[in-house]
Amino acid sequence: MREIAILGIGQTPISEHWEKSLRAIAGEAVLAALADAGRERADGPALSAVEGLFVGNMLSGLLNRQENLGALIADWVGLRGTEAVKVEAACGSGAAAVRAALMAVASGAMDCAVAVGVEKMTETVGPQTTAALATAADADWEAAQGLSFVAINALVMRRYLHEYKWKHTDFAPFSINAHANAVHNPYARLHDAITAADYNRARMVADPINLLDASPIGDGAAAVVLVPADLIPRNGRPVVTIAGSASATDSIAVHDRRDPLWLSAAAESAKKAYAQAGVGPADIDVFELHDAFSIMAALSLEACGFAERGQGPRLGLEGQIHPTGRVPIATRGGLKARGHPVGATGAYQIVEVAQQLRGEAGATQVPGAKIGMAQNIGGSGATIVTHILKAN
Amino acid sequence: MREIAILGIGQTPISEHWEKSLRAIAGEAVLAALADAGRERADGPALSAVEGLFVGNMLSGLLNRQENLGALIADWVGLRGTEAVKVEAACGSGAAAVRAALMAVASGAMDCAVAVGVEKMTETVGPQTTAALATAADADWEAAQGLSFVAINALVMRRYLHEYKWKHTDFAPFSINAHANAVHNPYARLHDAITAADYNRARMVADPINLLDASPIGDGAAAVVLVPADLIPRNGRPVVTIAGSASATDSIAVHDRRDPLWLSAAAESAKKAYAQAGVGPADIDVFELHDAFSIMAALSLEACGFAERGQGPRLGLEGQIHPTGRVPIATRGGLKARGHPVGATGAYQIVEVAQQLRGEAGATQVPGAKIGMAQNIGGSGATIVTHILKAN
Repeated sequence: MREIAILGIGQTPISEHWEKSLRAIAGEAVLAALADAGRERADGPALSAVEGLFVGNMLSGLLNRQENLGALIADWVGLRGTEAVKVEAACGSGAAAVRAALMAVASGAMDCAVAVGVEKMTETVGPQTTAALATAADADWEAAQGLSFVAINALVMRRYLHEYKWKHTDFAPFSINAHANAVHNPYARLHDAITAADYNRARMVADPINLLDASPIGDGAAAVVLVPADLIPRNGRPVVTIAGSASATDSIAVHDRRDPLWLSAAAESAKKAYAQAGVGPADIDVFELHDAFSIMAALSLEACGFAERGQGPRLGLEGQIHPTGRVPIATRGGLKARGHPVGATGAYQIVEVAQQLRGEAGATQVPGAKIGMAQNIGGSGATIVTHILKAN
Repeated sequence: MREIAILGIGQTPISEHWEKSLRAIAGEAVLAALADAGRERADGPALSAVEGLFVGNMLSGLLNRQENLGALIADWVGLRGTEAVKVEAACGSGAAAVRAALMAVASGAMDCAVAVGVEKMTETVGPQTTAALATAADADWEAAQGLSFVAINALVMRRYLHEYKWKHTDFAPFSINAHANAVHNPYARLHDAITAADYNRARMVADPINLLDASPIGDGAAAVVLVPADLIPRNGRPVVTIAGSASATDSIAVHDRRDPLWLSAAAESAKKAYAQAGVGPADIDVFELHDAFSIMAALSLEACGFAERGQGPRLGLEGQIHPTGRVPIATRGGLKARGHPVGATGAYQIVEVAQQLRGEAGATQVPGAKIGMAQNIGGSGATIVTHILKAN
C-alpha cells in the first residue's frame, strides 16, 4: 500500500459555538489544515489540489437536521464539485473518515484528500442529545430498554470494579491527568485542573460514573490533509506518516460479548496496526486513547497491550500516564477535558498525535516522541479504529 | 488502480417489511450476494474471506434510531470483528458505499469487501419521513424555509417546463417505461403497468410533480461482493468489472447553482468514469439512472451526454428508452417502480446493471449488453456517483 503522510493539521476550539453553523465549524478546520500544509511545505497543496473530502460525523441528521454533509462542507470551503462523502461509525466516525481518506489516496484514485471530523451538539436540549447518543448502541436491545450511553458504560465500570477489586477513586488519575494537560491546550473544552478531592466529590451521573469520569460533549472540528509520502519534498522538517491503520468491530450490544470487559476490537485493530507499522506497545511514545469514560481508558490500555488485564488503573496510580511517563495518554486533554464532539473526536486525536510527533505540543510535549498511536471508539467498543503515526 | 470485479450480487424485494428489522434486511442482501458469488465461482469467497463491510444508508439515525450500522450489520451476518463502516451521501449513499468498498480493495488494504445499501423507511409516519428526507437538502436555506424534497424537485421541473416548452405529459414515457419493466422484476416495489392516461390523471403531489412522476419509498437492501479482478478464476462465465467509478458534488442548495437545470455533478462524474473506462455515451448499452422524479431522468440523460440540453424528454417520446431502444434506462423498474429505499438505491442500480451484463435480466434483458452505467444522486444533484461496469 502506498505510504501516506499527514501534511496539514487543523482544528477549532471545542466549545459551545452558538455563533457558527455546522458547515462553518467544519470549514474552519479544513481551511486551517490546508493553511498548515502550506506552512509545512512551501508547495503544500492548494485548495484546488484537494480531490476528495471525507467527513466524519455521527449526529448531524438527528441534531442538525442535515445529512449530505460531504456536498455541504465541500461547497462551503470552496471545493464545490469535488468528491465528498460522510463516513459514520458513531463516536468512531472521525478516525473512520481519516481511514477512508487514507484508502482513497492509497488506491490511487486521488493524490490529495482531506478528512474532517465535525460535530455540533450543544444547540440542542440535553434529553435530545442523550437520546441521539444512544443510537451508537443497539437500538432494539439496549436503547429501547432505556439504557442511555452513559448507563451502558456504568454497567461496564461496575462490573470491572467488582471483578478486579478496584475502588472508584483508583480511576482518578485518568481524569486528573487529562484535565492537567488540557490546561495547556488552547483548543480544549475545559481548562480547569482538578484534584483527587474534586474527583471524589463530583456529582453522580450513572453510578459509578460521576461527572469527572465522563467526557463533555461540545462543538468542534479537526482536519488532516493526506498526500502520498513520496510526493512531499524534504525540507528538514519531519514528515508525519501513517504507518498503521486498521479498523475492527465487535457486537454492538455489550451483553452479546463473551467478556464485557475486553475490547476485542481495540485489541484486533491495534494488533493489525502494530504489524503494519512494525512496532509494539513498547515502541509507542504517545497514545491518544478514547477516554469517553475513565473506564474506557483502562480497558483501552489493557486491550492494546500497555497493561495486563484488569490492571489498567495501575498505570495511572503509578504516575506513568503523564507526558513524561512511560505511557503518555490524553496529552492534549483527551476526551475527558479536550472534549468529545463525538464524530470529530477521532480526527482531533490524530491531529494531536501529529502535534506530538512534530514537537508542537508545548507544555505537554512528550520528549522525543517519534511514534504515536490514536485509537477511536464507536459505541461501547463496537467499532474501533487505530492509527499509528511516525515521524520520519 | 487495481481492477475490481463484482463477483456476487444480492438484493431483497423492496416492500414494507414490517416483519424485518433494519439489520435483517441488510443481512439478507449481504448473504444473498455471498451465496451468489459462490454460485458464480466454485471457490467464491466464503463469509470468512470478507475483510470489510461498507454500509450505504441515509436515514437510520432519524427513522430507526440506530447509527453505527457497520458494527450492527457485520455482527448480524456473522462478520463480528470485521472492519465495517457506514457511508452517507443522502440518496446517493448506496453508490458511495460501493465506491468506498472499491477504493478499500484497490488500495490493497483488503482483498474482499462487501458493500450493502439498506434503508427501512415505512415503519414511520409520513410527515416524519418527509422531514427526514429533507435533510438531503440544505437545512438552513432550503428545508428551514419549508421546502420539502419533492417541492424542490417541483420547482426544478416547473422551471424546465418553462425554459424548454415541454408539456407535463411529455414526461409520461419515463414513468410508463419504468412501470412496464418493473412488472418483470420480482424485487420491485410496484408491479402494475401504467398508461399515459393513468399518468395524466394521477393525483398532484407538488405541482407539476404528480404521483406518477415520483418514486415510492420502501424498505430494502442490495449488496455486491468486490474482489480484485485478477483473483477471479475464469470458468467461461463473463466477469463483471468496475471500469469506471467517480463521484462529484455541486452546491447542496439548488438556488446556489448557476443553472438549476444542469446537473454538473452528473456531468463531471460521468466524464471521469467515461475516461477511466475508455468509453463514451454511445458505448453504454444500459443506463440505470436516478429517476427519483421524472424530471431527474431527463436531466441525467442530458448531463451524461445522451441527449442535448433541454431534450431529455425526446428520448422517451421517441421510444428509445425501452430495453430494446438506443438508451435503455430503468430496465428493472428504476427508482420510479422498482422503488427508492433511499440509501439502498445506488446499490440496487449496480446490482441491476450487473444482472444485465450477465444476461440475467429476463424479460427486460438488453440484448447483448456488455457495458452498463449506474448513476446515483444524493440531494437535488448535490452528490452524484457514477459507475461504469463491463462484462469481460
